[in-house]
Amino acid sequence: MRDAYHEELDSIGDGLVEMARLVGSAIGRATTAILDADLKLAESVIAADARVDDLQHDLEARAIALLARQQPVATDLRIVVTSLRMSADLERSGDLAQHVAKLARLRFPERAVPRDLHSTVLEMGQLAQRLMAKAGEVLITKDVDLALQLEQDDDAMDLLHRTLFQHLMDDRWQHGIETAVDVTLLGRYYERFADHAVSVAKRVVYLVTGEHADDLQQPSANEAP
Amino acid sequence: MRDAYHEELDSIGDGLVEMARLVGSAIGRATTAILDADLKLAESVIAADARVDDLQHDLEARAIALLARQQPVATDLRIVVTSLRMSADLERSGDLAQHVAKLARLRFPERAVPRDLHSTVLEMGQLAQRLMAKAGEVLITKDVDLALQLEQDDDAMDLLHRTLFQHLMDDRWQHGIETAVDVTLLGRYYERFADHAVSVAKRVVYLVTGEHADDLQQPSANEAP
Repeated sequence: MRDAYHEELDSIGDGLVEMARLVGSAIGRATTAILDADLKLAESVIAADARVDDLQHDLEARAIALLARQQPVATDLRIVVTSLRMSADLERSGDLAQHVAKLARLRFPERAVPRDLHSTVLEMGQLAQRLMAKAGEVLITKDVDLALQLEQDDDAMDLLHRTLFQHLMDDRWQHGIETAVDVTLLGRYYERFADHAVSVAKRVVYLVTGEHADDLQQPSANEAP
Repeated sequence: MRDAYHEELDSIGDGLVEMARLVGSAIGRATTAILDADLKLAESVIAADARVDDLQHDLEARAIALLARQQPVATDLRIVVTSLRMSADLERSGDLAQHVAKLARLRFPERAVPRDLHSTVLEMGQLAQRLMAKAGEVLITKDVDLALQLEQDDDAMDLLHRTLFQHLMDDRWQHGIETAVDVTLLGRYYERFADHAVSVAKRVVYLVTGEHADDLQQPSANEAP
């Protein structure tokens, strides 16, 4: 009984790790697609999100089956419930990567991101991908120190987001309103993607330590509006 | 035993209804705050979100306690797990109402929304509030027809969102980049708020019918990128 339980729990954990891997790859490829105006790549990111959604449904079904069959209590129960929440975070991250890819497709053959913002958007995309890679690692290792690092990385994302806004607000902005709208949404997608990666890591911290990650370190800077 | 169980389940349901009421009120007041540049009202919306967060934590704790103590299976289990997801939707809706209020505060004493967009933003705010009121009603009545109505309302929200974008993209736009950015984010906040209200209603449909809401009617128009 106990063994079957741990096998099922492990398989839920594996599902989460796989979801993190897929959405991390998706945000990286979506970033390339939008910077290079690569329609084929954009389409592949858009199509690939179905796999993430399937994994989430599958994971939820298994979590509910596990609750029903094994009726875990205390810590075990908390792990299953938290897994459900993490899968929602990861599913939403997949949507956000898909949004980036859809914007690339919408503007094709034009590029949505002007040249002078390429490096900032590239950095945001790479940071988003790294954050998700770390979240995946935290899921595997349950490494609390690594999990707390994600909040620092998220501060870096906030900084990049602010840089993006400063470009937008600069009087010398010459790319017009449509591009301003695109860049605004893009910034929001990366920021939210990072939030979800941080959220996954924080939930692991809570499972391991019983304390909320926010209580273990200084609070990070406030989110932009 | 059975009675205690249903009492606990009812109290979780009451918590969801109360959260829907609070966030519905919050989006209505946040809309007034941003249209009237009312700082005091904005501050009150921002402060009031803590109550929504508290309700969610409380609700989650009770849901987990119920799972541990009563170990429900089948439909009962599904109700509890779904309640957890709905509380996450409602908590996030509260954040979005708070974002609207924070934007009002950031631009005070200026108005974030130009005069010629007032009516569109007002409509979005009112529709968001109505959607959440209906979601609350669906939580109470489990009325599947009413739940399916929300998807039509959400189509109306998508239309308003598109109207907003058309204004932005119009060559005659004369409100500058900062306002374009604000309006872009605002549109996104209302759209996401509506998505969460629809999501709550859809989850009720699934609990009542065992079928996903999307399978019971025509799919709605695709989300804007």
